[in-house]
Formats: sequence, structure tokens, C-alpha cells
Amino acid sequence: MTTPTEFQFTDYQPYDFANRRHIGPSPAEMDDMLKVVGYNSLDSLIDATVPSSIRQKAALAWGAPMTEREALDKLRETANKNKVLVSLIGQGYYGTITPPVIQRTILENPAWYTAYTPYQPEISQGRLEALLNYQTMICDLTGLDVANASLLDEATAAAEGMAIAERVAKSKAKAFFVDAACHPQTIALIETRAEPLGWTVIVGDPFKDLDPVDVFGAIFQYPGTHGHIHDFTGLISRLHQTGAIAVVAADILALTLLKSPGEMGADIAIGSSQRFGVPVGYGGPHAAFMSVKDAHKRSMPGRLVGVSVDARGNRAYRLSLQTREQHIRREKATSNICTAQVLLAVMASMYAVFHGPQGIKAIAQQIHQKAVLMAKGLEKLGYRIEPETFFDTLTVDVGHMQGLILRAAVAEGINLRKVGTTKIGMSLDERTRPATLEAAWRAFGGNFAVADFEPSYRLPKDLLRTSQYLTHPIFHMNRAESEMTRYIRRLSDRDLALDRAMIPLGSCTMKLNATAEMLPITWPEFSDIHPYAPVDQALGYREMIDDLTEKLCAVTGYDAFSMQPNSGAQGEYAGLLTIRNYHIANGNGHRDVCLIPTSAHGTNPASAQMAGMKVVVVKVRGNGDVDMDDFRAKAEEHADHLSCCMITYPSTHGVFEETVKEICDLVHKHGGQVYLDGANMNAMVGLSRPGDIGSDVSHLNLHKTFCIPHGGGGPGMGPIGVKAHLAPHLPGHPETDGRSGAVSAAAFGSASILPISWSYVLMMGGEGLTQATKVAILNANYIAARLKDAYGVLYKSESGRVAHECIIDTRPLSDSAGITVDDIAKRLIDCGFHAPTMSWPVAGTLMIEPTESETKAELDRFCEAMLAIREEARAIEEGRMDKVNNPLKNAPHTVEDLVGEWDRPYSREQACFPPGAFRVDKYWSPVNRVDNVYGDRNLVCTCPPVESYAEAAE
Amino acid sequence: MTTPTEFQFTDYQPYDFANRRHIGPSPAEMDDMLKVVGYNSLDSLIDATVPSSIRQKAALAWGAPMTEREALDKLRETANKNKVLVSLIGQGYYGTITPPVIQRTILENPAWYTAYTPYQPEISQGRLEALLNYQTMICDLTGLDVANASLLDEATAAAEGMAIAERVAKSKAKAFFVDAACHPQTIALIETRAEPLGWTVIVGDPFKDLDPVDVFGAIFQYPGTHGHIHDFTGLISRLHQTGAIAVVAADILALTLLKSPGEMGADIAIGSSQRFGVPVGYGGPHAAFMSVKDAHKRSMPGRLVGVSVDARGNRAYRLSLQTREQHIRREKATSNICTAQVLLAVMASMYAVFHGPQGIKAIAQQIHQKAVLMAKGLEKLGYRIEPETFFDTLTVDVGHMQGLILRAAVAEGINLRKVGTTKIGMSLDERTRPATLEAAWRAFGGNFAVADFEPSYRLPKDLLRTSQYLTHPIFHMNRAESEMTRYIRRLSDRDLALDRAMIPLGSCTMKLNATAEMLPITWPEFSDIHPYAPVDQALGYREMIDDLTEKLCAVTGYDAFSMQPNSGAQGEYAGLLTIRNYHIANGNGHRDVCLIPTSAHGTNPASAQMAGMKVVVVKVRGNGDVDMDDFRAKAEEHADHLSCCMITYPSTHGVFEETVKEICDLVHKHGGQVYLDGANMNAMVGLSRPGDIGSDVSHLNLHKTFCIPHGGGGPGMGPIGVKAHLAPHLPGHPETDGRSGAVSAAAFGSASILPISWSYVLMMGGEGLTQATKVAILNANYIAARLKDAYGVLYKSESGRVAHECIIDTRPLSDSAGITVDDIAKRLIDCGFHAPTMSWPVAGTLMIEPTESETKAELDRFCEAMLAIREEARAIEEGRMDKVNNPLKNAPHTVEDLVGEWDRPYSREQACFPPGAFRVDKYWSPVNRVDNVYGDRNLVCTCPPVESYAEAAE
Repeated sequence: MTTPTEFQFTDYQPYDFANRRHIGPSPAEMDDMLKVVGYNSLDSLIDATVPSSIRQKAALAWGAPMTEREALDKLRETANKNKVLVSLIGQGYYGTITPPVIQRTILENPAWYTAYTPYQPEISQGRLEALLNYQTMICDLTGLDVANASLLDEATAAAEGMAIAERVAKSKAKAFFVDAACHPQTIALIETRAEPLGWTVIVGDPFKDLDPVDVFGAIFQYPGTHGHIHDFTGLISRLHQTGAIAVVAADILALTLLKSPGEMGADIAIGSSQRFGVPVGYGGPHAAFMSVKDAHKRSMPGRLVGVSVDARGNRAYRLSLQTREQHIRREKATSNICTAQVLLAVMASMYAVFHGPQGIKAIAQQIHQKAVLMAKGLEKLGYRIEPETFFDTLTVDVGHMQGLILRAAVAEGINLRKVGTTKIGMSLDERTRPATLEAAWRAFGGNFAVADFEPSYRLPKDLLRTSQYLTHPIFHMNRAESEMTRYIRRLSDRDLALDRAMIPLGSCTMKLNATAEMLPITWPEFSDIHPYAPVDQALGYREMIDDLTEKLCAVTGYDAFSMQPNSGAQGEYAGLLTIRNYHIANGNGHRDVCLIPTSAHGTNPASAQMAGMKVVVVKVRGNGDVDMDDFRAKAEEHADHLSCCMITYPSTHGVFEETVKEICDLVHKHGGQVYLDGANMNAMVGLSRPGDIGSDVSHLNLHKTFCIPHGGGGPGMGPIGVKAHLAPHLPGHPETDGRSGAVSAAAFGSASILPISWSYVLMMGGEGLTQATKVAILNANYIAARLKDAYGVLYKSESGRVAHECIIDTRPLSDSAGITVDDIAKRLIDCGFHAPTMSWPVAGTLMIEPTESETKAELDRFCEAMLAIREEARAIEEGRMDKVNNPLKNAPHTVEDLVGEWDRPYSREQACFPPGAFRVDKYWSPVNRVDNVYGDRNLVCTCPPVESYAEAAE
Repeated sequence: MTTPTEFQFTDYQPYDFANRRHIGPSPAEMDDMLKVVGYNSLDSLIDATVPSSIRQKAALAWGAPMTEREALDKLRETANKNKVLVSLIGQGYYGTITPPVIQRTILENPAWYTAYTPYQPEISQGRLEALLNYQTMICDLTGLDVANASLLDEATAAAEGMAIAERVAKSKAKAFFVDAACHPQTIALIETRAEPLGWTVIVGDPFKDLDPVDVFGAIFQYPGTHGHIHDFTGLISRLHQTGAIAVVAADILALTLLKSPGEMGADIAIGSSQRFGVPVGYGGPHAAFMSVKDAHKRSMPGRLVGVSVDARGNRAYRLSLQTREQHIRREKATSNICTAQVLLAVMASMYAVFHGPQGIKAIAQQIHQKAVLMAKGLEKLGYRIEPETFFDTLTVDVGHMQGLILRAAVAEGINLRKVGTTKIGMSLDERTRPATLEAAWRAFGGNFAVADFEPSYRLPKDLLRTSQYLTHPIFHMNRAESEMTRYIRRLSDRDLALDRAMIPLGSCTMKLNATAEMLPITWPEFSDIHPYAPVDQALGYREMIDDLTEKLCAVTGYDAFSMQPNSGAQGEYAGLLTIRNYHIANGNGHRDVCLIPTSAHGTNPASAQMAGMKVVVVKVRGNGDVDMDDFRAKAEEHADHLSCCMITYPSTHGVFEETVKEICDLVHKHGGQVYLDGANMNAMVGLSRPGDIGSDVSHLNLHKTFCIPHGGGGPGMGPIGVKAHLAPHLPGHPETDGRSGAVSAAAFGSASILPISWSYVLMMGGEGLTQATKVAILNANYIAARLKDAYGVLYKSESGRVAHECIIDTRPLSDSAGITVDDIAKRLIDCGFHAPTMSWPVAGTLMIEPTESETKAELDRFCEAMLAIREEARAIEEGRMDKVNNPLKNAPHTVEDLVGEWDRPYSREQACFPPGAFRVDKYWSPVNRVDNVYGDRNLVCTCPPVESYAEAAE
């Protein structure tokens, strides 16, 4: 007989997470809301909304939902199956110490981790400042002009670097040279990326094998994966002579001691900022960096924070050059990068603020000295250290002793790196202690004490860094913890995140990130596992991944999953590559046409481009549905070359299209595969399964549907599910199966945030997840019902229902009152809300997704704000309010407005306390409306000069 | 050869906690500050400030300061020596589940834990609301009229209950009856308290042994410590007939199912709110409660939150009836209660908000059902369950099997309670799982499954609760985690704590509470140990306590410490009892005179009163020093009965008096002992030791000098150190040594916060602690130097120096401009600061203690605010500003002021952005100045009516 883990005597379970903590509206609230929507039960609403043809047959079920305590116990038990050894494996992942103040006040603080991407600059000034610090730090350390605010991982950044090189190089060559000293995962990702695009990858020793004439660019690792340090100045100069581009993959910490890539003439530098205080976490998430010469800044993927001014002329930050994301170049895209690693970039930047240049340099010097000590011990044992000069990484040839020493090291609690069949590598780091050195020596047969050796330097003398870095006052703050705490708090207070208000972003699923889900990620058993640690040290991770996979299969109707992609766009790309590889394996390598409706998210065509496909656009009807006639025609027209179609379900217009099965059948009939974009899975879980509808592959945004917080613009996880026939073609990874096709540096992407999604599904159970979906649909329909008279609701289903989001039509206000979506979005800030998604998928409209986690009270507060805005527009329409000088155009209002002269034709009261705004607890925008044009015209992407920082600096 | 744990290659240690994280001013800043103060080195300032006669000879030294990581590793290693078993010991401490959202957003959130006691109501509205919720909850559950906002622990609360009873009873009897069913620690504390006051304690069965005529009051435990539940209505009625008072010690959770003490007619109810989500923590901290009939509200010790209005007539909370603390009744005191348990009371109140009445009742019902199941299993084994009806606690007589079963239970991972020599007790709780029951049965020899038994009820039918509780809407909020998170955030945003600004409170030492120090307290190995668990399960605790004791001995020059007192005042009381017991043991029981200077903190005479001493007041000279002539005269006059003197060093005027040794010698000469109040230890650590000066006993406020955060007004820890001759007379405890004299319910007070102080001393090392003291003195002298021309600085040493705090004289402004300390304090809120200590020790002055943790920038911000305030007063003096309608009298200014009509003779800009105030990051007071008189005249101490909560409630 099995004993249940908890008693469940009464109907009322105090810890009923699924029904009373995660799902916003109470049962009584739902009854009221259903009345407004016009249904007498939730199920009747769902029946009317979700076409019966696509409803799944069996209910989701995997046992009772767990309480928070049960789930935390389960996670603890699982965590304990991971073994935390000291990992000196290196290869892009290094031990680092997260300053406790950064851990607690950033990583564990919902004000930081529940924030959205800073598209609305006024309510994102805090993290924009932190990201500007990050960009400044990267520019300084790499010696280049412009840095973006983070990429997914070093290997992805390298592939992006290659793509820029191909685009901007004057050379017309179609090959890219890769330093054999690059990390293996970097080489793998470059190969994955190059292959569909028809670029040749040449891997070799750049000093022997690189002929600049052959290539449009080259990448060098600095220091090399085995520790060698070379000066690439000459090679770069030769590359430039033929119009080729030089990319340097650099270790950010080594750059504090070594000449920068910029000083060598590099065009692009990439790398990881992981070792600036972000735990290895079995592979991620961490923020990768990229910096480029000024000339290439407009070719850089990802997000770039810049400095602008607000309506009062005060300094304000914003995302510059928004050529990406919603504005992504679609069919002409060279990158699909969307999600960044904001939370981790913020941590890394704060690590630099916390330590300052002197501290970071001291950390680097100490690591180097540890490495020299290690070398001296090994030399005393008769081993020859491979790199003569090095920073932190050593390699020694141990011949047939390799296995023995590696095992002895594990017995000593240390993971070393297996290099080839006779060598051993090791990278020392900030956490390495004297005892670690002594234990490592013992593994090599030496019985020394650290005191037996003198620390010294073996850096290459001609490559020592002489240039300054981190000179800006922000990196010279007084480093008392009081100051750090207050600086971090001030920044976070400037931002509006989920911990203060609903964030009703359509297509972004800003749902609750429950505390119980967040607690485990900072446990050392999850955060301190090296991604390339032996499998038997990560059994907890594997068990969690297996169980999560099983549950995601149940949710989606797929047969297999790859956890490798660490963003939604990465998932799309991986999914399309899987299709591509499937076709190739079946002798259909010629199939390269991808049908995509015009309404698709911009990443869809971008990903298709990257996967070497030709995008054929399919029309969308006036009601937002795919134009079936056009689809049929295009499918037939391209039948011989049809690779796949990409559809989003429910549609990007927030509607369950009845025709989805027909689309799938059509594509299959013509030899293609169906990619169903999982962006809207929050409307499907428990009700409908992509795999049942006929889709072959999907990515899931775990950071949308499965509760990973947005972190202010990342991290994310975009695992892909596939039907069985595609499973053999999922991405491989050099460190697990040795197969090609890797899309992320780590085999399981950003594995350390998977506990969030796993605890979510454990605490919800199948029933809870299904209920969440139903309530998400109810919440959206409730908002639609409340706003439909004031604004038109676009794109309903035939039954008049929306799915989990709704688009309200604000275009008429533009004509009648000159009020744009921007005005509404900014006015919502006065009401204490983040704006809905603007002008996507339809220009001039707002897409609202409340999610299941918002209560009726919060939905009502939002609706009241929206209705009041409508009335303000009406006053303009009716001439009762000025067309220019009105609360909508002047929004957001700040304290500066209140304090100064008031010459407006409306009151301060009306300005600052519109319906929706809290009275005592009002959120105040720290800046007035930010000037976008000014910011792009006067592009400044590093910290502005000293004077303006007087307040924060020492 | 010993391997050091960390490398320390370079001069610059990135993790130099002592010098760069804890201590505010950087070396360069200190140089600048020393110039202002007029010294060329820190040591020369110290030499001029601290008399050479009292300087300690040897430097503090106990090895190198640890890095944060080393300290955390050490704490982890120590924590692992504690064994976390399932404790069913009960006896006032029960397993409970802290909702993760409460753990992370309150207990682990510096916005909550670094706040000060809410004396300044305007900047404390958030926690005042939470505490009002707490009082409402206690009133509701106990069925009484007025509750205070927490006491130290249940046993202390019981002793306080007795003291009230003695004071308000019409009966003139001098005995107090104690139900033998009270928890042993409660009985012990009552005996400790009664003895010096000459009250007789009668312990017995109230239904047999209580004759109301004999007593001024009685206390009953409900349910009894062994599980029995009785109706005390009849007894209480009989007590009332003789004018005696009835106190009921109640289990807060049982009250959800059982008739309340109020409904039985009790005058006073006390108990612990621990099991409302606060971990047992080896004894504390937890919030105890006390509620009384309306008639007794003015006799209640501790803090009482009430509702008042602000200057605009809006609702505002404040501490009511401030007859205690700074206003404590000194020589006439009946209680010395000062520190409350605010952080824990907030947690407990949020637990009630989180679960609501339905949830809490369900938890209670489930616990009861588990207890019934447990009973059925034991009955099947042939045991007789002692209480026929019970809530959560069972007792069984097992005869000679007691030891065997207790050991078998431990082997099963369960602690049961040893009762007498033949019985075993157990209390089921929220955490008890089916597996625990089965394991417990196995320990008794039974091999049952929970499914073998039906849950049912064995509550006393005639005592079932029929009255309502937690009816206020705040306890009926929508319980979605989104709502909880936002409610908690809104409250915390209303308050100004150390995470936003310096809190320059004299005598309160609001220094950095470093994150690294706070991390371990929520580790289960510290938080989940029952205070009465077997010693071998708490070896980590014991090791920590021993090491901390050793270091505190080194710091103070004492020979032994007791960690039992959990507040400063409790420490005073314990210290004086120790002196008393010493005299008694030496046949000097008649020695009962305690000399106390008039300048002493009010708790000093209050504690002396409680220890049965006669307070003789000694004069203080105009310069703030003790009047030696008067001291000598009083010491001689009372030589025959002299018990001790109580002095504060450096003095409460913030000066190192040269005469301290003479005082000690005098007292000793006349047969007395010296109690040196450790409130100002932050000026002494590493420079001077009480034990060397001649003191015999001191308490240390670990929540001041040793970094335990103030938690918004508690917890605290006030361990006492003594010279060897007093060591045998330190408090005993029934659960450790069985000796009398216990002053806290748990043997080591609030043990679970000791890791904070321990990590502090580990990370600072002796040298760091000494440097901290020096910088604390520098910071105070810097402020004194900067403000001395604008305000007079009272009480300097002969060299013109202050110690670690300074008193500025604002009385002249009262005469010249009608500006009071209150006006200055409220105006400082506009500048973004908590006020200094007001009117203590000298009426009409401000006492400022910056501590070592504040940077020069923050000190300057404060000084600029103070200087600007002086200029505003000057404008009034010179007639340039109105005497009534000015920024000082109207402070604090709120957003409401800005939004409304502005008819003031100064600008909005001047009102809201005085020097010191941040521009973008300004702190806005949520209310205008709070009306104290209104609040006391219209005493409302529970949540105000429904309408006003519309915003927060569902």
C-alpha cells in the first residue's frame, strides 16, 4: 500500500496551489465574470471558444497536484541526486562567486525577475541603466565601440558573429575560418549555422591553415580552449587586407590582464559574462556578449540600450535601433535573436560595479597565480605544461594515465577536463582554493602543499594589457554593501514589474512566477553543476529533465523533446533544422520552401531563413484567419519543394481557427512538415494538443506558458517537441551524443531554470494546468466583453469569442482624436500599468493577454483604466479637450510635472490619478515620455559622462 | 602544515568584507573626513576620544577575517551538524509551513527586515498596517478587546500577564495561581518573575487546588501542555467574585476550533503566534501575543498600534498610548518590555491573510484529525490516550518502555516528548504527514497504515467554537499569489528602511545587516530544530553558541555568557537577577539598592524594579557626566544595602566619561556590583572592555552592535556577559540544566538569529571589529563637526570629541522660530531620512548615531539636509518665512499636497525637494503628519471598517 505524502482530509486544502495561488479569479469572481461574458459555466465558454474538432480526447493526468511543500521536497530530493564537485573543466564555464547582495536583491527579487523586456522605456529605466552599465563594461573590456545587451550563450554569439561577418565583409568568399582552439561547442554551433546557408567552415590552426583570401571572416579564441594565448594582430591585419572580418571569442576575465581584441584590430568580440558572478547552472542561463566596431553597429543582432532624453529634456534610457524583434527583418533577416539574458547581464554588470576594475583585476590575477602554482606542482611531478604562457587554463599530456588521473581527481572531488585520449586540461577560477590545488596534485600523484611553491606570473609579456577599463564612475562607487543595496533598490524601484501590477502583454503570457518555483534555482545542487560534468554527477538534472519531458509530451501530444534551445526563436530554428535534416535523411534535401502566413511573428521567417529555407508568404483574411485558398494554392504550387509550413495556434490574432487541421493535412499531403509555433500554448494546455491536430514539431516557451519569469528580457527556454519520425533528427551535442546540429552551447540549454517549470507542472497537476488554460481564456474574454463597447475587438471566432488574448482596435481614435497606441500605452503608465502589446500583429491596435493569474480586481482595475482613456479620447473628439495639450499626449506624468508650473488645461489630479491608479501606492514613472528619434539620431550606448552620476557615485 | 582556506595573494582582496563591505567610508573618504574633524589619522582621533585609562591592552584577535564565502561555508558546515528530525515535542513549539511568498518577500526582504521600530509613523505605515492586522487577528481569535503588537515569547507573556493581574486586581492577595498544565517553561518564568517581587506562586490543578480568595490572579493553559482541554468559565467567574484576574495561555490555532478565552470570561489571553508560519528555529524568534479586556488596555505592556488621522484627515496608523519605552515609567514601571517581535508578528499576520479564516480552520481541523488517527493507532496497540478530548496533543503512559520508545522514535526520525518517567507526549502539526504517523506507530511497536483508520473528531463538544473570527475583509483577500505579492510589496514600499537610506538613530546602532549574514537563517538546519530537541541533534547550534560566546568574552573581558535573554531589556533584567542571586548566595540578600543616573535609559530602572530592587537616582552634571559627588554620597549612604549600580558606557549622552573606573571602584568598595549597559558597545568593541573597566555584568544588544536587523521593531537578542564570580548565578532553564531563574521560554533565546552575529564576527575578525568601532566614532565626530556651527553639539568629552553618537541641540530653534524636534524629524522625511532619536536623553534635542556602515556620501546627504533645515528655521527667525505655514510645520509633504491646491508661501519645489532628497528616486511619505492626540483620544486598535479597504480587498 502506498502512503500518500500529504493528508487531504477536507475539501478546503490550505495549500491548494493550482486553484487558489496560481489561478487569479476566485470561484465567486469567475461566476461574476462569466455573467459578463454571457455564459453560465466555464466549460460552456470553453466549448464555445475552442472548436470541438481540435479538443483533446483524454484529460491531462499525472497524479494529484502537489502542495508547495511536497513539490519543494521533491525538488530537494531530486537536487540531492546531483553531486556538487569542484569543476575545473573550464571550456567556457567557470566557478564564480555570486556576491550575496546580488543574489538576494537581484536574482531572488521579484522586482527584477518578473519584469518584462524594456520595450516601454519609461517604466524600465532601472534595468536599462544596469544594461547600459553592462554595455559599457563590455566595450571597455573588449576595446570595441558598441556592445549589445546580451546574447544567449558564447557559442550562439560566435555563430551570430559569423553571420555579421558574412554580411559586412567586403570579401565575397563563402567560407569562414574557425580557430581549432575554439571551444568544441562553439565550433559545433558555427557548423550548424553555416551548413544550411551554404557557407564552408574551415577548422584549423590559424597560424598555419588560414589563407585570408579564402574566407569572409575568421574567429579566434583568446585564450584558446586549452589555455594558449596568441596575438592575432597580424592575422587580423591580413584578413582586413582581403576584406574579411575578424571575430575574437574572448574570456572576459582574462581581458582585465591581456591586450583587448579591439587593440588587436578585431571587428567583433564575443564571449560569455558567466564568470562575472553567474553560477554555471549546468549550462545556463548566462549572458553572452558581443561588441563591434562602430561601423558594424547596425548589423549587430540583439538589443542595444541607448541614451536619449525625455519630454522635459532629462536623460532617459531606451532600446535603440529597434530593427529587431517585432521589427525583425522577416524574410531578409540574418538573425532571429529575440530573447536576451537580461537578468544575468544585470547580475554580471553589478558584479563589475560591486568589485570595480581593481577588484576584478585582482580576481583575475589571483586566478592566474593559482594556475601558476598548479603548473609548478605538476612540473615538479615531471609533467610539461602545454601553454608556455597562460591565464587560467593548463593542459598536460599524461599519456595512458589519463583515465586513472581523471578518476583519481573525481575521487578527490574534482572534475578535470578530458582532452583527446592522452591529455588533461584544467581551468582555475575564482572559487579555487588551496585545498583544491593540493587535491588535484594528489590525483596526479603529488603530495605537495601550496606553501611549497611561490606564486608568480606566466602571462605573455608582450600581450599584457596597458589600456584602462571600467573608468566610468559607476564602477568606482563606494563598495560598501549599504551603497550597493540602495543602488540596486533605487534601480528596481524605477521599474514596473509583475510584483506591482498586471502586465497584459499579448503573446507574452506574463503569468505568475510563484516563489515556490523560484526557490530551488539558487540551491547549489542545481546552480553549481558544470554542464560538462560526468553524467553520474547530474542524475538529479537528468531525472528532472526526463520527467518534465514526459509531461510536456503529454501536454503536446509529441513523442520526444529537446531541451537544448534556450529561447523561443532558438526553438523555431532548431525545429526547422530538424525538419530539414529529416528531409535530407529521406533523400528530400531539395525541399526548402517554408509557408508562413503574413500574420506570423517576425522570428518565424527569420528562423526559416537561418535554416536555409525559402519563405513563401501566405495571405491572411480580413478576420485574421489564414486565407485557405491562398494556402492551398501556395502549397500546391510549391508541392515539389515544400519543406514545411509555420503556423501559430491559436493564431497570432488570438483566435482558434477552425481550419488548422485542414492546413496540416494539406501540408502533409504535399510532402511537407508542420511547425506549430508554441507561443500561444497557454491557450491550449489541457484542451488541445498540437500533436493531435497534425503538427510535427513545436517549440514551447517555458518562460511564457511554464512560469519561467521574463527576468526583464530573458532568460528563456524554448525546448522543441516532435513526433517520433522527427526524433532522430533533433539537435545533437558534442558533449553528450557527439552528434551534429547543436543549437546551444549546453546540451540542455539553460538547465538551471528548468526547476521552475517542473515545479509548476508538479504543483498544478494535469487538472490544474487545464483549469489554468480555461481561466486564461475566461480572463481574455472578460476583458474583451468589458472593453468591446468602448473599443472594437478585432478577430473573434465564429462564436464571437477570443482565445487567451484579445486585440482591441484603437485605430479609430487616431482618426477621431489623433490618439495613437503610443499615447494609450503611455497613459496606462499613469494608471499603473504596463501597456499591452502595441501594433502587433496589427498596426495601431493593442493586444491584451491577461493570463489566468490575474484576479478579477486587477482585470477590473485595468478595464477601468482603459475605459477612462476612451473617455479622455472622447473629450478630444468632442472638442472638450485640447488635441495636443491633453493627458494622453502628455503621458506619462511625473513628479516633475507636479512640482513645476502647471499650465495645462486639465488638473494635476486628472493627470496623475486617472482610474486604475493607486492613490497611496501610486507608481510614478521616473521620466516623462522618452524621445525615440533623438535617441536613434544621437546614438550613445555607453554610460554618459561623469557629472550626471554625481548622485549615485561616491 | 595547515592549508589556509583561501588564497590571499594581493593586497587588494576583492572580498574584503570588513574593510570594504561593512565599513562605509573608503580610505580616501576617511582622509577627507578626518580633515573636517581636525585629525591627521584615525588613531589620533581615537586616542583623543577614548580615554587612555580605559583602553584595552591587547588587540582583539581570533585569526584572519573570513570572506563571505568562507563564512558561509563555515556556517554550512556548522548547520550540517544539526540534525533535522520531525519534532512532535510540542510544548509551545510546533511544526508549521512558512508560505514561500512570505518567506521570500518578508523574511528575506531587506525592506522589511532592516526597518526600525515604527516610532515615526509617517514612514512606517506599511508595517503598522501589518501589525494592526496582527492585533485584529489576536483580538478575534482570543475573543478579547485589545491586543498589543507582540511580546517576546509565550512564557514572558505569561509573566507579564501575572504582573498586570497584580496591578489591576481588586484582590489584595499576594499569590498567583498557576495551572500545573502550563508549559514547564511558562511556570519557570512566572516563578522567576514572582520571586523578587515577593509574590507567592501556587502551582496546582485549578479544579482542585485553586481557592480564589488566596490569589490576585491565576493562569490556565488551554489546551493544557499534555493535551487536556477544560472549560475555565466557572473558575474564572469565581476568581472575579474575589476581585482576582484570570489569564488564559491559549494555543492560537486551537482557538479556531474552540471557544475563546474571552467567551470564558478571561481578562487576559496570552500565547505564541509561532505556529502561524514562523519556523521553530531552536526557540525563536517568534511573536507572542497578549490581549486584554478593554478595561485593562492601559495596563498592557508592549506596543499597541492604533488608527489615527493625518493632517489632511486621511487615515493613518501609529503606535498608541506611548507610555512605554522612552516614556517608560522608570521607577514606577511594572514591565520593562521594549523590543517586540515585529518581523515575526508581520509574518504571522500575513499567514492569516494568506490562508484566511477558512484556511486556518482547515489547517487546525486537519491537525486534529491527524491527532485522532494517531490516537486510534496507539489505542489499537493497547495504549490509553490520556486526554479524552484533545486538539493536537496526546499523552500516553508507556511505563518502563518510555526510554525504548523514545529511542525507537528517534531512529524513525521523530522526536517525541518525554513526560515524567513513564509517559510520552506528542503534538501533531501542520507538517505532520501520513508517513510520520506510520513511523511513530512503528516506534510504539505497531505496523499500521494510515488508511487502516478513519479520521474523526475528538474535540470537546461543549467547547466547540461558534463565534466568528477574521471577518475583516483583509482576511478575505483573493489569495492568488499575485495579489499577496503585491499587497506585501505595497506595504513595504510605504516604509523607509535601511535598504533605502541611513537611519541615524542615536542609541540604536542601525548598521548594515549584510546579506551574507542573513542567508543562513532560513536554512532548515537552523530554522527547523525544536528548542527542546535532544542536544545531540543541535550540535551545530551548540558549537556556534560556544564559539560566539568565546568571541563575545574576548570582546567584553567577561568570563561567561548567557544567550537566554532575547531583548536588551530582558538582558538587563537577567543581569540584575544574576547580581541578586549572587548576593543571596553570599548571605547578602538584604542588598537591594540599585544606583542609576538620571540619564539612564528608562528600561534600567524598570528592570531594577522587576528584579526587586530599590532604585536610587544619581544626579548628572550639566555636561552629561555622572555627578561623582552625588554618586559617592549615595553609594556611601546606601553602603549597607547597596546591590549594584547601572551605568551606560559610553554614556547615554554619547561621551566616554573619564570617571567610569572610579565609579566601579566605588561600588565595589561598598559591596555592590556594577551593571554596565551594553547599549553603546558599538563605541567600545576592540577599544575598551567592560570587564577590564571594572564592570561585573553587561548585556549586549546583538541587534545593535552585532548586526541582527531590527526587523521593524524586533526581534532582538540581549545575551549577558559576567565575570567569573557571577557565572554560577546566570539564568537556568528547566529544559537544559533544570536550574531556576529562566528569563526566556527557550534556553538560548532567539537562537535562530545567532548565525547573523556569528557570521559578522567571523567576517570582521578582531581587527575588523576594532576598525568598525573607530570608524563609527569617526562618522559621529564628522557629523558633529559638520553640524556644530548650525546647531550646538551637546556633551563632548574634554577633548571636544563625541563617541559614536552626538546630540545636537535644537532647543534654541524652538524659542527663536517655534520649531520643535518633531518639525525637524518630519522635515527630514521630505529629505528622505528617518529622524534621529528625538528628545532623548535630553528633551528637545536630537541624538544622531551614524554607525560605521554609512559612507561619506550618505553622511553628507544627511548633513546637507540638516543644514538646509537650519536655514529654513533661520528664515522664520528673520521673518522671511511664516511661523505657521512653512515647510517645517507642514512636513512631511506628500503627493496629495502636490496634487491639490497650493496656497503656501513657499514653492512645491522647496516643499518636496529640499537638499538631501533624491530627485528621481525620492521617497514619498504615504501620509501627511499623523495626529497623535486624535489617535489616543479615539483609540481604535483593530482594522478599521470595510469601506476603507476597498482598494486592497477582493
